[in-house]
Amino acid sequence: MDKVGRIVEFVLELDRLKAVTRKVRPLGQERYENSAEHSWHLAMLALSMAPYAPPGTDMDRVIHMLLVHDIGEIDTGDTLFFVEAGRVERKAAEEQAASRILSLLPDGQGAPLLDLWREFEAGESREARFAQAMDRAAPVLLNLANDGQSWRENGVRHEQVAGRVGPPVAAGCPALWDHIAGRLDAARDAGWYGMG
Amino acid sequence: MDKVGRIVEFVLELDRLKAVTRKVRPLGQERYENSAEHSWHLAMLALSMAPYAPPGTDMDRVIHMLLVHDIGEIDTGDTLFFVEAGRVERKAAEEQAASRILSLLPDGQGAPLLDLWREFEAGESREARFAQAMDRAAPVLLNLANDGQSWRENGVRHEQVAGRVGPPVAAGCPALWDHIAGRLDAARDAGWYGMG
Repeated sequence: MDKVGRIVEFVLELDRLKAVTRKVRPLGQERYENSAEHSWHLAMLALSMAPYAPPGTDMDRVIHMLLVHDIGEIDTGDTLFFVEAGRVERKAAEEQAASRILSLLPDGQGAPLLDLWREFEAGESREARFAQAMDRAAPVLLNLANDGQSWRENGVRHEQVAGRVGPPVAAGCPALWDHIAGRLDAARDAGWYGMG
Repeated sequence: MDKVGRIVEFVLELDRLKAVTRKVRPLGQERYENSAEHSWHLAMLALSMAPYAPPGTDMDRVIHMLLVHDIGEIDTGDTLFFVEAGRVERKAAEEQAASRILSLLPDGQGAPLLDLWREFEAGESREARFAQAMDRAAPVLLNLANDGQSWRENGVRHEQVAGRVGPPVAAGCPALWDHIAGRLDAARDAGWYGMG
């Protein structure tokens, strides 16, 4: 197959991310969000929060990272962020999937994208920390707007949100965490969390 | 409302793009594609086709353009590309919607994004031509992979695809048009177009 044909095959393989469902519902919809539209939403959140990124953050690396960060789920599916069991094995399977899918591209084009995928997961660079902050914050923002739908459906407790989402969002984008933190207690008072 | 609060309101407004349905179905799915996941898919197509963009194309401008190009549909909905009637009025309504939505952002942050939206629609810059080529080509690639589903469902004829999709894709990304053009006759022979 010629090179453009291989790129087209890659892009059609990516189409499958539209079938990977997450746990939160788009506002006002009955269905669950999928990982493709989630990736778009994160890229827009990052673009919008750019003025609050740490100085020197390369926003285009952030955007590219967010566009590719979930493609491994094409093989593995999405798992609720708060599920601890099997995390190491899941991440290994996602990396293997990302590697498989990106190897569909010709001329080693997939290599820098796989590097970005790994950089995001490692969460060590300024860009990865900012991108992770967007990824962790987005479902919280949706839950704060839909009475805690995915928290209630999945038994997610206040302590889990504050404890597992707080640190990465505060580290990657302090201004966004300031906004969220002030609303989590009100969510608890309103009964928007699960029973655990 | 503080500035981050306004950004969050903007991002939640964007969430509505996940409810805007298009005419093509993701491969293997019964439901129709929505404009949010489509925007992600286009960004990935653009990233992947970057080696075939005209020299000097600013790919990050292309990506940003593709991320915002459909947000006006939040108010107007999506219309099949081949529908000529009312196009001028539709585009004016989409621009008004994009302007309304982007004005939710604080500090004039929406202005450069609205400029990108307009640049995409004008289709005059190298970046806009490349971005438009991605947007026109993506549903064709899906139709070539699903036996012409949205062409058959909407009575789209071979001449419409070749005549309306060909020029912008050939102008913005010749290599992608070379790939597609060679497959359109086979699609006709296979009966994948509508009766018009």
